[in-house]
Amino acid sequence: MNREQRAALLAEEMMAFQALFEPYLEGLLPGEGLEQQTVADAMRYSLLAGGKRIRPFLLVSCHKLCGGEPGQVLPLAAALEMIHTYSLIHDDLPCMDNDDYRRGRPTSHKVFGEAMAVLAGDGLLTAAFETALQARVEPALLCKAVQELGRAAGLFGMLGGQSIDVESEKKRLSLDEAQMLRMYAMKTGALLTGACRIGFAAAGVSGERLEIVTEYARELGLTFQIVDDMLDKTGDFALLGKPIGSDEKNQKTTFATLYSLEQCEALARQHTEAAVGAAQRLPDSDVLVALAEYLLERKK
Amino acid sequence: MNREQRAALLAEEMMAFQALFEPYLEGLLPGEGLEQQTVADAMRYSLLAGGKRIRPFLLVSCHKLCGGEPGQVLPLAAALEMIHTYSLIHDDLPCMDNDDYRRGRPTSHKVFGEAMAVLAGDGLLTAAFETALQARVEPALLCKAVQELGRAAGLFGMLGGQSIDVESEKKRLSLDEAQMLRMYAMKTGALLTGACRIGFAAAGVSGERLEIVTEYARELGLTFQIVDDMLDKTGDFALLGKPIGSDEKNQKTTFATLYSLEQCEALARQHTEAAVGAAQRLPDSDVLVALAEYLLERKK
Repeated sequence: MNREQRAALLAEEMMAFQALFEPYLEGLLPGEGLEQQTVADAMRYSLLAGGKRIRPFLLVSCHKLCGGEPGQVLPLAAALEMIHTYSLIHDDLPCMDNDDYRRGRPTSHKVFGEAMAVLAGDGLLTAAFETALQARVEPALLCKAVQELGRAAGLFGMLGGQSIDVESEKKRLSLDEAQMLRMYAMKTGALLTGACRIGFAAAGVSGERLEIVTEYARELGLTFQIVDDMLDKTGDFALLGKPIGSDEKNQKTTFATLYSLEQCEALARQHTEAAVGAAQRLPDSDVLVALAEYLLERKK
Repeated sequence: MNREQRAALLAEEMMAFQALFEPYLEGLLPGEGLEQQTVADAMRYSLLAGGKRIRPFLLVSCHKLCGGEPGQVLPLAAALEMIHTYSLIHDDLPCMDNDDYRRGRPTSHKVFGEAMAVLAGDGLLTAAFETALQARVEPALLCKAVQELGRAAGLFGMLGGQSIDVESEKKRLSLDEAQMLRMYAMKTGALLTGACRIGFAAAGVSGERLEIVTEYARELGLTFQIVDDMLDKTGDFALLGKPIGSDEKNQKTTFATLYSLEQCEALARQHTEAAVGAAQRLPDSDVLVALAEYLLERKK
């Protein structure tokens, strides 16, 4: 399969995934008639704002590669997207990055107020675990998959990275390159790695194949982050849906502050190649290869 | 067994529980040497501030009543305490109740700043589910028990109640009695009900006995809340560890604003009797009976 064919396959798979995933996600949160409707609305507002759904797609693709059916793991995929969404809501709060736009719309606290935004994030994080446990996966495997979810989101994953990021910003300490790499590996890398590992765990696959897909995800995460940092400098607000230049405003150390744009591009290409190399050591991995190539080129 | 003997049994059981539980809790969070140490410290600070540990004790007692061993479910008990603690941290935030003291110490955001307090709460909520899944319980039962945990904490449990409470406060709308009862049933009732149901679920007990213990917990929750509202009016800061009169300051509808103290006492006694009545329909329930009697008399 050549690159063009892979891109076509990816587009097809993504469309098929979204046709399953969006209605499922839509049905997860109550639409009306509750006394606690405001927080439910705030949860829906952010969850259904139309993100790229990279993480849940990656999870389902990895599970499929192991012989699984997408329908079995939609709850795990939704859980991962809920966790990603909660982290964005809390990240945007005035006491954190204080951002006004996200996914092209006013941020949660701008619409619902700070207290409701805190609660909406809490609600999505809680709903993530409730939802995850509804996956149609054998209980012993489900327990492992949900533990991977917790690990990816927690102190040694996304949350740990977020706290290093926030603290360095509040104290106006610049991270050096090694610190930045470790921070990113947690803050953005962990959920991508988690997506792959949850998909594999739900299918009961461990050992060498699990290690290979973890390596793939790590390289994918680096590409993702480098492109993110470049887009924060050179991107288009209309495409990105969030303000450009917020890293500079917050005096963050990023790939784009450490390196020139040309160097960033070369680095992103290098990590994409490493991701592709890892994926090619797995069977039926055309979609994973294509996804790595796609994320290198993304403009949003 | 008479009331005095039950009180002695309860004191003994609580001491035995704490001797197991506190060291276990202490060992759950990393003590030093992380790059993300600040958020880990903030999580420890609130979790190890020495709460009453009513919820985890109730969980372990319910599991024991079904024939289980406390050691099996300590992770579930710790998870419940983590969720209770996260809710206090977020509840105390400036954008919520804006409280300066909790459990006799400055609140999390007073010590670590607002951003870290948000993250510490998020971290405890995430760690709760990670920890819960480590219980030594058969996977199918563990999945059910952790779902009960999610339900108790989520949109139709604690979080739902909290959001009704916050919203009525922000909009300066007084709840009527029926609304207040529904709000309390979620905000404080759900975690107590959850404690009992998780203990039963982990032991594989469902059906009529599960319904009875749910009724017990509901009545216990009402007593707990009535006493809480009375203590907010008449309690002792040194014993309570949090400011007196915060409900009045926040213009909340509580049992103590709807009723006189004498009426509150009568009501609390009535719900305690109902809880005791439910507990007595279960085998080996002396500890549950004693706990209901104890919570009626508590001064902190």
